[in-house]
Amino acid sequence: MIRFESDYTQGATPEIIQRLVETNMEMTPGYGMDEYCMSAQRKIKAEIGREDADVHFLVGGTQTNFTFISSVLRPHQGVICAETGHIHVHETGSVEACGHKLLPLQSADGKITAEQIAALTDNHYADPNFEHMTQPKLVYISFPTENGTIYSKAELTAISDVCKERDLILFLDGARLGYGLACKKNDLTMADIAKLCDAFYIGGTKVGALFGEALVIVNDKCKKDFRYIEKQKGAMLAKGRLLGLQFDTLFTNGLYHRISLHAASLSEKIEAAFKNKGIELYYNSPTNQQFPVLSQEQYDILKKDFVFSDWGRKGDKYIVRFCTSWATDEKDVEKLLSVIETL
Amino acid sequence: MIRFESDYTQGATPEIIQRLVETNMEMTPGYGMDEYCMSAQRKIKAEIGREDADVHFLVGGTQTNFTFISSVLRPHQGVICAETGHIHVHETGSVEACGHKLLPLQSADGKITAEQIAALTDNHYADPNFEHMTQPKLVYISFPTENGTIYSKAELTAISDVCKERDLILFLDGARLGYGLACKKNDLTMADIAKLCDAFYIGGTKVGALFGEALVIVNDKCKKDFRYIEKQKGAMLAKGRLLGLQFDTLFTNGLYHRISLHAASLSEKIEAAFKNKGIELYYNSPTNQQFPVLSQEQYDILKKDFVFSDWGRKGDKYIVRFCTSWATDEKDVEKLLSVIETL
Amino acid sequence: MIRFESDYTQGATPEIIQRLVETNMEMTPGYGMDEYCMSAQRKIKAEIGREDADVHFLVGGTQTNFTFISSVLRPHQGVICAETGHIHVHETGSVEACGHKLLPLQSADGKITAEQIAALTDNHYADPNFEHMTQPKLVYISFPTENGTIYSKAELTAISDVCKERDLILFLDGARLGYGLACKKNDLTMADIAKLCDAFYIGGTKVGALFGEALVIVNDKCKKDFRYIEKQKGAMLAKGRLLGLQFDTLFTNGLYHRISLHAASLSEKIEAAFKNKGIELYYNSPTNQQFPVLSQEQYDILKKDFVFSDWGRKGDKYIVRFCTSWATDEKDVEKLLSVIETL
Amino acid sequence: MIRFESDYTQGATPEIIQRLVETNMEMTPGYGMDEYCMSAQRKIKAEIGREDADVHFLVGGTQTNFTFISSVLRPHQGVICAETGHIHVHETGSVEACGHKLLPLQSADGKITAEQIAALTDNHYADPNFEHMTQPKLVYISFPTENGTIYSKAELTAISDVCKERDLILFLDGARLGYGLACKKNDLTMADIAKLCDAFYIGGTKVGALFGEALVIVNDKCKKDFRYIEKQKGAMLAKGRLLGLQFDTLFTNGLYHRISLHAASLSEKIEAAFKNKGIELYYNSPTNQQFPVLSQEQYDILKKDFVFSDWGRKGDKYIVRFCTSWATDEKDVEKLLSVIETL
Repeated sequence: MIRFESDYTQGATPEIIQRLVETNMEMTPGYGMDEYCMSAQRKIKAEIGREDADVHFLVGGTQTNFTFISSVLRPHQGVICAETGHIHVHETGSVEACGHKLLPLQSADGKITAEQIAALTDNHYADPNFEHMTQPKLVYISFPTENGTIYSKAELTAISDVCKERDLILFLDGARLGYGLACKKNDLTMADIAKLCDAFYIGGTKVGALFGEALVIVNDKCKKDFRYIEKQKGAMLAKGRLLGLQFDTLFTNGLYHRISLHAASLSEKIEAAFKNKGIELYYNSPTNQQFPVLSQEQYDILKKDFVFSDWGRKGDKYIVRFCTSWATDEKDVEKLLSVIETL
Repeated sequence: MIRFESDYTQGATPEIIQRLVETNMEMTPGYGMDEYCMSAQRKIKAEIGREDADVHFLVGGTQTNFTFISSVLRPHQGVICAETGHIHVHETGSVEACGHKLLPLQSADGKITAEQIAALTDNHYADPNFEHMTQPKLVYISFPTENGTIYSKAELTAISDVCKERDLILFLDGARLGYGLACKKNDLTMADIAKLCDAFYIGGTKVGALFGEALVIVNDKCKKDFRYIEKQKGAMLAKGRLLGLQFDTLFTNGLYHRISLHAASLSEKIEAAFKNKGIELYYNSPTNQQFPVLSQEQYDILKKDFVFSDWGRKGDKYIVRFCTSWATDEKDVEKLLSVIETL
Repeated sequence: MIRFESDYTQGATPEIIQRLVETNMEMTPGYGMDEYCMSAQRKIKAEIGREDADVHFLVGGTQTNFTFISSVLRPHQGVICAETGHIHVHETGSVEACGHKLLPLQSADGKITAEQIAALTDNHYADPNFEHMTQPKLVYISFPTENGTIYSKAELTAISDVCKERDLILFLDGARLGYGLACKKNDLTMADIAKLCDAFYIGGTKVGALFGEALVIVNDKCKKDFRYIEKQKGAMLAKGRLLGLQFDTLFTNGLYHRISLHAASLSEKIEAAFKNKGIELYYNSPTNQQFPVLSQEQYDILKKDFVFSDWGRKGDKYIVRFCTSWATDEKDVEKLLSVIETL
Repeated sequence: MIRFESDYTQGATPEIIQRLVETNMEMTPGYGMDEYCMSAQRKIKAEIGREDADVHFLVGGTQTNFTFISSVLRPHQGVICAETGHIHVHETGSVEACGHKLLPLQSADGKITAEQIAALTDNHYADPNFEHMTQPKLVYISFPTENGTIYSKAELTAISDVCKERDLILFLDGARLGYGLACKKNDLTMADIAKLCDAFYIGGTKVGALFGEALVIVNDKCKKDFRYIEKQKGAMLAKGRLLGLQFDTLFTNGLYHRISLHAASLSEKIEAAFKNKGIELYYNSPTNQQFPVLSQEQYDILKKDFVFSDWGRKGDKYIVRFCTSWATDEKDVEKLLSVIETL
């Protein structure tokens, strides 16, 4: 069986493994105060062109989301997000467990718009009973979204403007950031994202690392005392160098982007193959996830050789998901393309 | 101006005021351990025919909701409710502030169905990633709902059955309980509610008291240590006898039901008057709230003499709310009826 | 039996009861937006000479404490208090339930010192692992303390200075504020307290009201969005005028101070009587609580006619508490004095 | 410089590194549902002789503590611990951030006694206002403690008995469990601990792993739905196999105990050397941490070649800490011993 069901089934890029081996018996200070973390921070700041940013290394995505959100909101403030947002549907209420209500917006493809954010916020303050309702304060978006879609530079700029006008914090979940930046359709750089958002994170777990996310806090107002809260939420790794080492490696010689491009290119081939056969793709995803809508027959044929995820139903058809990743073998994709050809 | 905008604009029934005056200089123990609380508890238990119930007196509705919910849920458990539920839209995220996510269901009129509850719960456990999602554990319904609608005995029984089958706690918010029970269309008694729900509260603030809600916990599993949590949430009134006295009075000689009937009867007259003129009522509310859909002209005429609430828009028409209460003067209703007649 | 066991066994001053009766059937807006609240706010601001203060009316002390504390702290920040502080020992962990650790200081008599606060804070930042520990951010003191003691103007000024130097918020719990201000030994005014603290509350429950505490927020940095959090914590009374009316009455013609003086004067007589007989008073309390240390024989004699509280043991003697209040009858005190005389 | 300042300065045992390398490109399911986790679980269950235990793998100690505690307590319940307990002093209020108050007990050496636990609990229920205070419900102890001390079998049995009698949950923090079990003075096995506690964790971060703690839940009442809460708290590692692999390796062929013995034996040599020179050891620690009390001169001599931690002062002397670990080089210890000899 060839597996395409997720982008975190394997370990890390060989470069990372090699450095873990090489540095294993070195002695370093704990809690992210070591040289590897500092080096990785410097490289990420250089990448985004912001020497003044704060960069913190956390272990996982759910943790990064609630730790950052908890660090910047007061008890009555809530989070605007897509109804499909990962924090809303797949993090077991972790943001609510920190006391904050989510304010989900309708979304057909995982994206939300500047207009929706403006309307929700303006309606809040227009209501005479606004103090009886959660105050919208932070906007959470994913890039790419959980459906593989991405925001254009124009869309993200519009959202950023709305947030600035309404004193909202804009936070971008980049669990798959590399795959979004690497795809052909994208017109954003990491520096653009740093400029338009108050904070965002660079996903490592799904993009070449064993684990780890690099939280980048750009807005000074969101920086203060973050490490206290990181410690409180169990997000400060004792041997923090393991995170520093991984991100240092990913941001050396463009590795992060190179492996992301690998995944995005293979995904584009899969996308083209399905389209070529007239098979609908449920979301217009230019990134490393493809969501074909399959007939029972097509589904059964593909199930013989491949593992992929069930996503839902459309009438009597199956919506499924194929993921590529930094680790995907080109030969496996060739095999898949040849089977799609026969559908 | 004659005011119909809400059901908590006035003080308390004269009977309550009189007893407050009479007992003012008595010395009693604090925190709900006095004779008035005990007497009120006995009367409420008699009313519902359940000597084994626990009855606690709290100050307000929001407080009663989150204190009870917080006392029975574990951190990963959430609350199924209507998308219009008071805890979801008008309590500033108080349940989330206790750590729990709400799981709102679509609702056209404030009610939810046994089928919806069953489907949400069954879908949860059918998902292979169920542990990544909030576990549905408590069902919150209002009787009457925020839209004035009520559940029939058959509907509430069906909900109760679904909850028992799926190990869900059924909690009924009775902020306006009296008005629901007193209306003609209702086929439930307070004893029925006690039988079908695990817990519910009898609203005092909107039904004759200065303030106060009587929380009735029927299910033994939900009783333990409630007073600790009541104290922790600031819900244990120092001079608890003020609550005991009020509920003791309301449950003496059927006062609670008598004043509720007063409000419901006057509301039925208003409902009939609007219907008579062919004016649509937005919700089919048999209780003390009516939601006529008014043209601009009708709206302007009524605004001259009456205060009422704006509820929303339907096309170019206004949805508004008229409330009666235990304190509504029949003459004021007569005046309103005569103006409606002219519309 | 004559009762001296607590200062909240009775209702309210006759002036308050009279106004509740008079205004009962008036119709007013809810949630503290009525004329009675506004009038009471004006009078309190005039009393402290601060037109710019925010005044909010809440129902009880525990609620006021955690609602204010929760509104001004971030998740990693904690509260410095006396080990005997009410929030530490008798509020069922309500501040911790909002997520904040308490940092108790040793105290023999309920008071803490500027030196202790400075040392705790300075030690925190001197520790290289300070981010692994709760950040001290708010200082909670009671006036009078739970032991009846009071801070002098010099002591409170020193605490205020330390707080300003170290960016700590100073919050004063005035559950019995009137009794502290009214006693002979006191050299502070309410205006002084407003000047020296960032926020404080004026206790009503124990000083003449049926219930209610007036939270006064003086520091602009602590004011923003308080009403959202008040609503979220269940602390915004629907019929808010009940609170406004009570405080308006208490702050008309000096009633609050007059009734406080009554209690303090009677307590001073009791204090003198015990001292006169050579009976030790466990705390040096100049306010409405006295803590005599009684032999078994003395204890038994007093128990025949009086109800008082057990506070603890000192060797084989009993530490007990006698409370006076606004409602204490002078004749009851005369009776007590005559029995003390016989000990 | 030779470093003895902590036991988590280095990576992992070579056996672990080797298996990470070997398995890097394998594809496995996420979130701890892989074969490596299952194998590790089987080995740990075998070690403690309890097939019915639940074993979960989390990333760090702070996280494991608050995730478990949060999963078993209701909002009004608190945690009895030593005043020196790690959750009380060095986890930035993480348990309070989950809503629970800590109830610290005095401790000279990091240990608490059955008598202290019994007294605190009994006093709680003896107080007529017990509902106004946090309910003691869980006992947190560390083995070894933060001061290197250990509980004897008799002591742990007494604590366990007190907990059972009073319906308290007994949870043991085993961040350095291996070093406690391996030391000469110890008379407990891991199976004993499993028998006497309701839950405990086996520390990996400080004992041979890159990171990771194995939480063992023995009492059925504490098991339900743990994975939901693990996910909510950000403690469910996406590539869970990394944890499974490490513990599987540590529990293969006695590796965990072998490396622990290495550290404990070297520490015993250091202890003997100090004692031999008449240098006081501040705590009677038989495990991998030693706390000599040094004169200024001794301190300065040792500082020339060694890195160690400052722990505090005793008069004009320095209390410092020397740690060994699984990774300590015997030659470094020999060097240290030779310098101690010269003091």
